[in-house]
Amino acid sequence: MERQSAQAAWERRTERPLLALAVGFALAYAVPIVDSTASRSLTELCTGVEWVVWGAFAVDYVIRLGLAPRRAEFVRRHWPDLCAVVLPVLQPLRLLRMVSTLLLVGRRARMAPQIRLTTYVVGSVVGLLMFGSLAVLSVERGSPHGNIRTLGDAVWWSFTTMTTVGYGDHAPTTGLGRMIAVGLMLSGIALLGVVTANIAAWFLSQFEKDDVEERRQTEAIAVLTEEVRLLRAEVARLTERRPDHHH
Amino acid sequence: MERQSAQAAWERRTERPLLALAVGFALAYAVPIVDSTASRSLTELCTGVEWVVWGAFAVDYVIRLGLAPRRAEFVRRHWPDLCAVVLPVLQPLRLLRMVSTLLLVGRRARMAPQIRLTTYVVGSVVGLLMFGSLAVLSVERGSPHGNIRTLGDAVWWSFTTMTTVGYGDHAPTTGLGRMIAVGLMLSGIALLGVVTANIAAWFLSQFEKDDVEERRQTEAIAVLTEEVRLLRAEVARLTERRPDHHH
Amino acid sequence: MERQSAQAAWERRTERPLLALAVGFALAYAVPIVDSTASRSLTELCTGVEWVVWGAFAVDYVIRLGLAPRRAEFVRRHWPDLCAVVLPVLQPLRLLRMVSTLLLVGRRARMAPQIRLTTYVVGSVVGLLMFGSLAVLSVERGSPHGNIRTLGDAVWWSFTTMTTVGYGDHAPTTGLGRMIAVGLMLSGIALLGVVTANIAAWFLSQFEKDDVEERRQTEAIAVLTEEVRLLRAEVARLTERRPDHHH
Amino acid sequence: MERQSAQAAWERRTERPLLALAVGFALAYAVPIVDSTASRSLTELCTGVEWVVWGAFAVDYVIRLGLAPRRAEFVRRHWPDLCAVVLPVLQPLRLLRMVSTLLLVGRRARMAPQIRLTTYVVGSVVGLLMFGSLAVLSVERGSPHGNIRTLGDAVWWSFTTMTTVGYGDHAPTTGLGRMIAVGLMLSGIALLGVVTANIAAWFLSQFEKDDVEERRQTEAIAVLTEEVRLLRAEVARLTERRPDHHH
Repeated sequence: MERQSAQAAWERRTERPLLALAVGFALAYAVPIVDSTASRSLTELCTGVEWVVWGAFAVDYVIRLGLAPRRAEFVRRHWPDLCAVVLPVLQPLRLLRMVSTLLLVGRRARMAPQIRLTTYVVGSVVGLLMFGSLAVLSVERGSPHGNIRTLGDAVWWSFTTMTTVGYGDHAPTTGLGRMIAVGLMLSGIALLGVVTANIAAWFLSQFEKDDVEERRQTEAIAVLTEEVRLLRAEVARLTERRPDHHH
Repeated sequence: MERQSAQAAWERRTERPLLALAVGFALAYAVPIVDSTASRSLTELCTGVEWVVWGAFAVDYVIRLGLAPRRAEFVRRHWPDLCAVVLPVLQPLRLLRMVSTLLLVGRRARMAPQIRLTTYVVGSVVGLLMFGSLAVLSVERGSPHGNIRTLGDAVWWSFTTMTTVGYGDHAPTTGLGRMIAVGLMLSGIALLGVVTANIAAWFLSQFEKDDVEERRQTEAIAVLTEEVRLLRAEVARLTERRPDHHH
Repeated sequence: MERQSAQAAWERRTERPLLALAVGFALAYAVPIVDSTASRSLTELCTGVEWVVWGAFAVDYVIRLGLAPRRAEFVRRHWPDLCAVVLPVLQPLRLLRMVSTLLLVGRRARMAPQIRLTTYVVGSVVGLLMFGSLAVLSVERGSPHGNIRTLGDAVWWSFTTMTTVGYGDHAPTTGLGRMIAVGLMLSGIALLGVVTANIAAWFLSQFEKDDVEERRQTEAIAVLTEEVRLLRAEVARLTERRPDHHH
Repeated sequence: MERQSAQAAWERRTERPLLALAVGFALAYAVPIVDSTASRSLTELCTGVEWVVWGAFAVDYVIRLGLAPRRAEFVRRHWPDLCAVVLPVLQPLRLLRMVSTLLLVGRRARMAPQIRLTTYVVGSVVGLLMFGSLAVLSVERGSPHGNIRTLGDAVWWSFTTMTTVGYGDHAPTTGLGRMIAVGLMLSGIALLGVVTANIAAWFLSQFEKDDVEERRQTEAIAVLTEEVRLLRAEVARLTERRPDHHH
């Protein structure tokens, strides 16, 4: 129990700093893609920042593993985190590093008790829109037949994809770009699901309010309670009368 | 409490006139876009009407703020209204004025107690379709590569966008047009959500009706009540018998 | 009450024949469109059949109005039927006649007690797919820039529209065609809503089953009942003991 | 009863081997399509494997029919299985054989008690994506105007179809290809439905938790129980006092 709370305390304490690092990562990832004429040194700086942020989350994972009461179970329950920590070392691709960091940020955020599902999904949708646009832009700009060449097009394409509108005026042509697109589509479906579910839940919470059966029950219980009260009065009267039949 | 009701009374009383003004705004906004050969004077008249309607809603906001029991809280709770009141002054763009007025109308309508969520969403969907078509038409007609040049195309495009069908036979090419499109897509998803939620709620209200557990409970309570009645009878008999053991 | 049941009886009795007529209408509508080289006489025969079927539903409406206990209320509640009965007379367009008949069939079918919402929506979706394809084909085949020229294309387009996929390889170009398309899109959204709602309802009916609070209540009631039984036993013992303290 | 359990036992025992065969079928179906330069012998081997797997499921159906307590009812309830068993014999098309086998696998899987709806739909979605891509590729590669010529395009197209995004950069042009597409669209809508329903169910299970009415009931029952306890105490006191009024 003691150690469990130690882990919880660590997670609570590191929440904010890690979030700040995540924002830093976003900037470091965006800069070299948006400004394609960025100087070599600037690009290297951004790459450095990316590695640092990823490293911070890797360390966080290791520490949480150390604080976890049952290590084996922790690793089993958080296996995607483990992949996200190990993969960038094996294969230091920029895109892979981004996905790993996003995954770590996302799974870490979900643990925060105050974040409700809606906030979480909306948040990740916004994040995916941003990173999806940037990633597709960096991938498609290079391809010969690519039709996503400006940041504007990339963002516009992300929206048409995530809302499943899909005009087709812009569409990825490379394998990597299409993988990113699939990610956006699936998260778009999740977004749609959450929106619908929210509204449905709101509707039904209205419905619940006037549940006929339940109200009938409440009345039945009230009647019964009255019944028992009368009975007690009766028995009380009975007890009163006892003394005065002695003489 | 007294002032609160004063605010409520004002809101009730001004509901209808403000709605009429909203319709007026719609017309004033539509005319110069639909009839692109409108005379200078007519265009100026429409612009005037737009300013008047926006002004009316701005005044309404100020008065409601004046009648509000807790001003600070009112401003906090209605910050979008404040933006919608201030922005057109800072940046007198036609599109911005339209968005601000729509926002004021929408948020005002939502306060009307008799308007249920469905009515509200369907209403805003229709409004968004109309204004979205007009706005996109006025924006895209100007652009060199634009493919939305007639009102018919604009309306058709709005429908394909809001239902997330997105044929892509028509699609906005300018930044502004695409922002409007994103608004339509998101409200389309909301529409889809409300339709689904409505049907789901209807289904479940059927389900609720035959809740096994609850019926079992009702029976249990009935049995118990019977039990207590028998008990009372017993105690009553007991009380009867008291007198005849005196002599 | 008696007349009400008369109306109900009529609706029950005429259900099947009217359904058969609806099928006949479908055939009569399809033939001249599918086989565009149909002989003049055949086309006229089909038009005749269409008028007969529409007429049958019109008569059905009038008779139900006659049997209705409260006529004014009947007209108010069934105003779309009234439009569908009157319009084809004012404006004898083929498309309008088709829409009117579909509307009459649909609203009549919904009254059948045994038809559940799902069956109803699925049924109308299939109907709309079929009639939508035929209507769009007959409209678009004529237009110069139309790209829906064969029945195959029309059916394929209907599916891509109703499922909101919207590839855009085929899309209506005429105003009429686009109106039909909007109808298909909206019914597609309804279809999606019903599918989702059905699954959600199924899920929740599972959830409902294990409602913790309710089970706790049932136990509480059981405990209470036991409590009362013990009490009765006690009072019973008390009553027993009364006799043997007389002598 | 005894025979029923015999059938159940058979279904339990054959579950795994049949699943393995299904995987084998997938491979045998994929190879000749992916590697279009496959040697004649290899292609024939694959065709053989397909026939064997289909045959195994056909035999499984016959045995289950034999073990079924009520044969007529079994045939009625499993009529699609019957079609899937008979059709490939009448019409030995590759595509038809694939559909039949998929249908048999799917309906068999649904009977497994431990498979929940979500798992089932997700599983079939993945299966449909894979087989849909392969089938469309094999069909469209042949057509003159086809634009789905590589496996990559086919998979990409399947995703854009199933998520109802439908860019239209790739779309089937042949009748067969379009039938497959419709299957993918419909299963995509089902996927969307399950995702939404899952989230909605999750939300509502939260809502349920704090049901005001129910908590009020629980309290009412508690109060009542207390009431009865007091009553018992009273009666107990009454019983105590009996002895000491004899002398």
